[in-house]
This record gives sequence, structure tokens and C-alpha cells, in this order.
Amino acid sequence: MSAAECRTYTAGDLAGRFGLELRGDAGTSVRGVATIAEATPDRLTFLSNSKYRGQLATTRAGIVVLGAADADAAPGTALVARDPYSAYARIAALFESQPEAPAGAHPSAVVDASATVDPSAHIGPHVSIGTRSVIGAGAYVGPGCVIGEDCLVGAGARLVARVTLVTRVRLGERVLVHPGAVLGADGFGIAMEHGAWLKVPQLGGVVVGDDCEIGANTTIDRGAIDDTVLEEDVRLDNQIQIGHNVRIGAHTAIAGCVAVAGSARIGRYCLIGGAAGIVGHIEICDKVVITAMSLVTHSIREPGEYSSGTPLMDNRSWRRNAARFRQLDRLFRARRD
Amino acid sequence: MSAAECRTYTAGDLAGRFGLELRGDAGTSVRGVATIAEATPDRLTFLSNSKYRGQLATTRAGIVVLGAADADAAPGTALVARDPYSAYARIAALFESQPEAPAGAHPSAVVDASATVDPSAHIGPHVSIGTRSVIGAGAYVGPGCVIGEDCLVGAGARLVARVTLVTRVRLGERVLVHPGAVLGADGFGIAMEHGAWLKVPQLGGVVVGDDCEIGANTTIDRGAIDDTVLEEDVRLDNQIQIGHNVRIGAHTAIAGCVAVAGSARIGRYCLIGGAAGIVGHIEICDKVVITAMSLVTHSIREPGEYSSGTPLMDNRSWRRNAARFRQLDRLFRARRD
Amino acid sequence: MSAAECRTYTAGDLAGRFGLELRGDAGTSVRGVATIAEATPDRLTFLSNSKYRGQLATTRAGIVVLGAADADAAPGTALVARDPYSAYARIAALFESQPEAPAGAHPSAVVDASATVDPSAHIGPHVSIGTRSVIGAGAYVGPGCVIGEDCLVGAGARLVARVTLVTRVRLGERVLVHPGAVLGADGFGIAMEHGAWLKVPQLGGVVVGDDCEIGANTTIDRGAIDDTVLEEDVRLDNQIQIGHNVRIGAHTAIAGCVAVAGSARIGRYCLIGGAAGIVGHIEICDKVVITAMSLVTHSIREPGEYSSGTPLMDNRSWRRNAARFRQLDRLFRARRD
Repeated sequence: MSAAECRTYTAGDLAGRFGLELRGDAGTSVRGVATIAEATPDRLTFLSNSKYRGQLATTRAGIVVLGAADADAAPGTALVARDPYSAYARIAALFESQPEAPAGAHPSAVVDASATVDPSAHIGPHVSIGTRSVIGAGAYVGPGCVIGEDCLVGAGARLVARVTLVTRVRLGERVLVHPGAVLGADGFGIAMEHGAWLKVPQLGGVVVGDDCEIGANTTIDRGAIDDTVLEEDVRLDNQIQIGHNVRIGAHTAIAGCVAVAGSARIGRYCLIGGAAGIVGHIEICDKVVITAMSLVTHSIREPGEYSSGTPLMDNRSWRRNAARFRQLDRLFRARRD
Repeated sequence: MSAAECRTYTAGDLAGRFGLELRGDAGTSVRGVATIAEATPDRLTFLSNSKYRGQLATTRAGIVVLGAADADAAPGTALVARDPYSAYARIAALFESQPEAPAGAHPSAVVDASATVDPSAHIGPHVSIGTRSVIGAGAYVGPGCVIGEDCLVGAGARLVARVTLVTRVRLGERVLVHPGAVLGADGFGIAMEHGAWLKVPQLGGVVVGDDCEIGANTTIDRGAIDDTVLEEDVRLDNQIQIGHNVRIGAHTAIAGCVAVAGSARIGRYCLIGGAAGIVGHIEICDKVVITAMSLVTHSIREPGEYSSGTPLMDNRSWRRNAARFRQLDRLFRARRD
Repeated sequence: MSAAECRTYTAGDLAGRFGLELRGDAGTSVRGVATIAEATPDRLTFLSNSKYRGQLATTRAGIVVLGAADADAAPGTALVARDPYSAYARIAALFESQPEAPAGAHPSAVVDASATVDPSAHIGPHVSIGTRSVIGAGAYVGPGCVIGEDCLVGAGARLVARVTLVTRVRLGERVLVHPGAVLGADGFGIAMEHGAWLKVPQLGGVVVGDDCEIGANTTIDRGAIDDTVLEEDVRLDNQIQIGHNVRIGAHTAIAGCVAVAGSARIGRYCLIGGAAGIVGHIEICDKVVITAMSLVTHSIREPGEYSSGTPLMDNRSWRRNAARFRQLDRLFRARRD
């Protein structure tokens, strides 16, 4: 359908390009990727988990990318990789199509006279760019994006569509931001005074390191005074909330719907499961794994995996057991007596 | 205030139109709906739960829609229905007003030359439509929507405002999508390679069946290779996250803020409570009910109601009992000794 | 960098303006705020928690705002306040910069002929305003906002960017709404009829009282028949979901990612922690505190703090203890025998 679908690569091409070991016919050609189950002879597929090795017997794929241990089981042409999933990712990128993005600004875009847009950048329809903001070389600012004041979009960064950078947001190079994300909105700072809330001005910015990815409808608030910071290569899924003055270490990945409260610090190489919560003003060290929907209420100083919650049960059993939770302390005390 | 408010219907009209049994004066006319408590004589109200039957005594409503069992208690004109809530829904739709939507594209809309827009479709202000996308007959694309590449908006579909369809999103007929929803953004696919994340290209699409409804700020990611699929008549509330390659069966309804991780499969006629979580790569059979904020961590093979979590308590009691949760295993082991 | 950065205030100015007690040199001048740790001599900082008093010894800040009890420890010029955090908030507002907002509508804005826009209001680029809507004096409607039909934006209200008011949304004076928020989308009303869902028309509106703040990507649905209501000075953080016909009392503050289901009523001066859930059709009285990620499943009639959930543990310990949760009822029953 799209232009990308017309590209064709042979097994020989791919082996050479990505340094993979070829087994079978170097001339086998593919024009796309597919799952093991759905692949046709003009598609490449992959096997990254030996558990599913049995599926190789029936796949119709033209080429299979897999590890050395599974190579015997490949029915036809194979590309052997040390890490088949990474090798697949690199190959699949060849078939990825991006919308055309001519350099320059669409006539409907509104760019403030004080903003600086690199001539090689693409500014899509209905975009607005505010005072003193800077758009770097080769950046892509898709339809409907709003860039406020004093923002920086790094070279090669890509704002897919309808992204908002409010104020003082600086994105590194090659940062990818998906639609609906809002970076640099006010943090939630309020003080009670004489029975009413007084807004505490939010004056900091947001700094996002090189190669970060920010999911759809994710929000990252500006700092109250200092900045909210994502170090390089942080990967955020959709609908994540990052409060003001949070700092997230390099190479940390966070799954969808996680809530991180203000001033929390998360280390490097952490993996935070979906819908987990992290309260404010705590510190999580490097290489911590939090399982889905757990709530982190205190600092974590040792790498490892952490969890909270109770197991899923049929509702009737759950009601009985949950009611007993209320009586736990009494039970323990009774035992002591 | 709006045009819809000027429409007037008599009890006789409504009985005939919807096949309801009339009791009382066929000439009683109403020009809107209201709650039992707030209704005035020119409004229609309904009673769907006999528990609230006592409120009939004091309602001032001109017409009450109710079940046969409660019909005696109606103070004035009544319409008797087998299912009063459905009958009310059908009647209330008469009073619903929609913004005017002339056929054709607003002059500020940006439609790619390769896109196909049915002449009867409405394309609102500040909309952009990308390459090869197709907008069906009678579709409504509200202000600020972004339709990317290779998308299809089915006949009679309605994108209220500021909806984004990124790439390869196909909406069935009469699909209703609320503002801020993002369909077809990249799934969260990353692979660790030499200490940094490598993005795994997301090449699939999103397929949404006929008569689905997608809530405000809900996100549905495109599949990694195959599509993410909602079968027909799936109803999603606001701020739901649907990961890549999820499949949701027909007539399933999901309440707000639910997170569904990648490759999960949910059956038909399921009801998922608000803020629940469903981990990836599991299967939930038909007719499963998940209560609010439960986490589904394994496949469910039997219809029924499922839950996790602990009951709400005053904080002091909760602290005492929650602390004991840490000691549960030790307690059980001690009993065995 | 921005204009605000050029403003300079002396300690004497600030003491007079905000009624604070000056200690030290009235001529000390500052041109911004900073944290205690990062402040330079041209910045003002504050100490609101005596616990951090030790940091005063090393701060380089030109002026410190603090309480009387800590005033001795200030190394240089100090402003003594009864509530240092509120005093800081009022001073910091002097340094807050807002984007320039000339009165009138940007040429790219699309304003329906039946709408009424006060001449002093600012309507940004790519805004659309629907039939019969009214924009009050001094209101700011930022880039990409969509105002639907029969809406009211109160005097001095501020819609930062890409805010959607769908239908019948009435915002009070000085209401602040952050990007991506959606107010007035349909509530989640569906009825099962003959094996398929029937949509129940959502005909009510949303009423937001004076001085409310609504966070980024937060959603507030319109009522089914009556309105969804936020009383004055309600403060909502990001990514909160408020279902149809919810009522939230004045001065209540809700942290990010909270889900409030339909027809729940929340009292005045409540504090709802992040990612908490509140089921539908219940009532929470005034001055209730809910801790993070708790689920409120029943009405609360006494002020106080409430919680649910289990503590975070290392995954191995958690697995052992969580497994025992399934056996709790059996354990209690065994003890009775």
C-alpha cells in the first residue's frame, strides 16, 4: 500500500548489512516482515524465544532471523544472530515508512518572529511556535503541535502530531514524542492560605536527554524552580504522569499509565511496570524493577524486583479473604497473648 | 437554548414511535428530559430501578417511562416499557443536539491530494488528512483532528474534536471517538542492545469494528507487526490505554483509566471496571467481569467476576494490618511447625 | 532569557509589598528565585520546613524567606513570614512570565458568527469557537483550543493550549486549564439491549467554579441529564478522570491520575492522593484524605485519612505473602474450630 512496501531485500543483502550469518539461499528476497504464523514467502520473520521453536516447522516465511541454538530448526533461509530480536528490529526498520516531510513550514503554521527554525526542519500544518523557541536541524514537528516559549527541539527530534511543549522545554537530539503528550505544563504546586488555595508559581523547565521516547498522552510537568529531567535514552510509554522536579536516570523504561509524583528520583536502567505508582520525594537506585500496579512508598536502595498488591481471585473468594485483611493485626496480637 | 430544546413530543407520539404502552393523557407534551427530582411538567423522566419508586410520588414530570411493575405508582402520564432504561435512551436521543455539520471541508482544513473524502463528509476547521487516507460517507471529522497516512474513517463515523489517527488506523461504520483520543501511535517495543535501547519498529495498524465508542484521551497503539483489533460494539471510556496487538471481543465495555498491556486478548461481553490493569500476553474468556482497580496477572478461562486488592480502612487501622501482610507467610509456616 | 528575568526587587520592596518583617539590608536586590542549594546572591529562596534549616548555613541566596523560629539561622538578608511557603508563592509570582497575549483573535482562529468574544479576550492561533459560546473579559484561549457549542469561558480564565470544551461547559472566573484537558465529552452511559450496547444520550453540561485549576490531559465528562459540577477553588492535577454527574466540593485538591466514577460526590477540603480510585454513586464527606492508589468503594461519613493496599516488598517475599492472602479466610475459620 505505502511506498515502504515496495522495498525488497535479499538474504544476502541483509546478512552483509547487519553482520549476520547466512544459512540457505542468499538470493531469497523479502519485501516486509510478518509474524511466524502469518508470514508468506515474501516476508521475513524472527524467533527470539526458543520456547516457540516448534512454530518454525510450519512457517512459510522466506527468511527467519534466529539464534544459533535454533538455526537447525529453520525450514528455509535463515539469518543467525547473537540477539535475534535486536537483529529483527534493525531489519524491520528498513520497511518502516514515514510520512513525507519536506523541509520548511506549512503555510498554515504560525511561527513567532523571534523563533529560530532550522531550514532543514519540517513544520506541519496548524503548528504554532512561540517566542524565542528553537527548532533544530532535521527536526519534524507534525500537524497540530504547539511549541510555547523558550523551548528547544533538538536536531532530528520528531514530534509526531498534536504534541504540546508549554514553556522552557528542551528536547535533546533524536527525541521522539507521540501525539497528545504535554511537556512543560505547570507542576501541581498549591499552598493553603486562609482557607483557600494559593497557586505556587512553577518557574522551572523540562530537560529531555538525547534519544528519549515519550508516549501518547504522557505528561511531564515543568519544575517548580529547577528543571524536571529525563537523562538520555529514557523510554516512556503512553499516559504516564511525571510530576515536577522528577529526575529519571538514563536507559530507564517505564510502561503505560505509571504515575510518578513530584521530586521523585529514579535511577538508571530501571524498569517500571504498567500502572505502577511512585510517591514524591523518594529515591530509587539503579537497576530496580517494579512490577505492574505496585505502589512505591519509600526509597529503594538495593537493585532488584519489588512488588505490592494481592493476587486476582474469583470475587466470592476475594471478598472472604479481603474481609480478613481487616482483622490481621488482631489475629497477630491474639497469638502473642 | 439550543435548537434541540425547541422540539416537542406528545406521549402519544412517543408511545407509537417506540412501541410503548401509554397510560394517561396521550396529549401530554414534553420538550426535554430530566431527573425524577428535577423534572418539570414539560419534561420526561424515567424509573429503571424499583428501589427508587418512592420518588414517583413527588415528581413533577409530565411523562414517566417505567416498567409494568411500577406503573401503578406513576402520578400522571406514563409510558410502560419492558426495559425502561433502553426506552429512555431512545427517547432522550430525540432531544440530543449535534453541532451543525455541513458537508465538505472547512477552508482551514489541509487535505492531502492523495486522500479521498466522501462529498457528504464534514471536515472541520484545522483538520489535517494525510496521504492515501479515506473518509467515508456522512462521516464527521471535528475541529483539530489529525488523520495520518493510510487511515480509513468509516461511513457515519464521528470524530468529535482533536482526535488523532496516526497511521494505518481503520475505523468501522458509526464509530464514535471523543476528543484527545490517539489511535495508531507506536506500540512500546524496545530491545536492549549494548547497554542502550533499540526501538523495535511498529508496523501494524489498528482496526476498530462498527459501532465502537472510544473515550476522551484514550490511546490505542498500532500493532508491532499484525494489527491491534477491537471487534464491533466495543465501548471504551476515557483515558484507557490499549497496548499493541491487543484484541478485544465484540460488545465488551471497559471503564475509565484501564491499562491493557500488549498482546492481551479480551473476550466478548466482558465488563472491565475502572482503573483495572491487564498484563500482557494473557487471555480473558467471554463474559468476564473485573472489578475496579483489580490487576489481572494470568489468563482467565471461566466466565465470572474477579477481583484483587484490599478494603479501604481508616489509615491507622490500615497501617497496622498492612504491616502484618509482610508477616503472613511466616505466620502460616509457624502454624505448620 | 525572558522578559520576566529582567525584573529586580529589593528586600525593602518585598517586605512592604507583602507585609513581611525585614532583617538585614533593605537594599539587597534579587531578580529571580532559586532553591536553597542552587541560589546565587541575586536570587531569593525560602525555608518552609525547619527540618532543612541546616542548609541555611551554606546558601548563597541574597534573600531568604522563612519563619520567625528559623530567622536566627539566616546568613544574610531575611524576610520573616508567618507562612513562608505562601509568602514565597506570592513573591515568586512576580517573576512568572506569561506569553504575550494581545487582545483579539488570531487570523487563523475560526469563531462562529453566533459566538460572543469579549474584545479584551485573547484568542490564539488555530482556535475554533462554536455556536452560542461566550468568551469573557480578559480570558486567554491559547493555541489549538477547541470550544464547542453553548460554552462559557469566564472572565480572566486561561486555557493554556489545546484544551477542548465540548458542549455546555461553563468555566467560572480565573479558571486555569492546562493543555490536553477535555471537558464536556460524553459520559460513559450505555444500556444492553438485545445483545448489543445502546448509547444513552449525554445531555447535561459541566460547571466549573471560580478559581479552579484543571491539569494537563485531565478529562471531565458532561452529565447525563444534570451537570457535572466542580465548586470553586477545586484543584485537579494531570490525567484525572471525572465521570458524569460527579460533584466536587470547594477547595478540594486531587493529585494526578485519580479516577472518579460517575455520580460520586466528594466533599469540601478533601485531599485525594495520586492514582486513587473512587467508585460511582458514593459520597465522601468534607475533610477526607485518601492516600495514594487507594480505592474508595463505599461512602465515607467521617473526616480523616483512609487507605487501602499492601506494602511494597522485594518480589520474592511479596510472592510468598501474597499467596497466603488467598488462604486467609481458611486460616481464620480454622482458628474458630
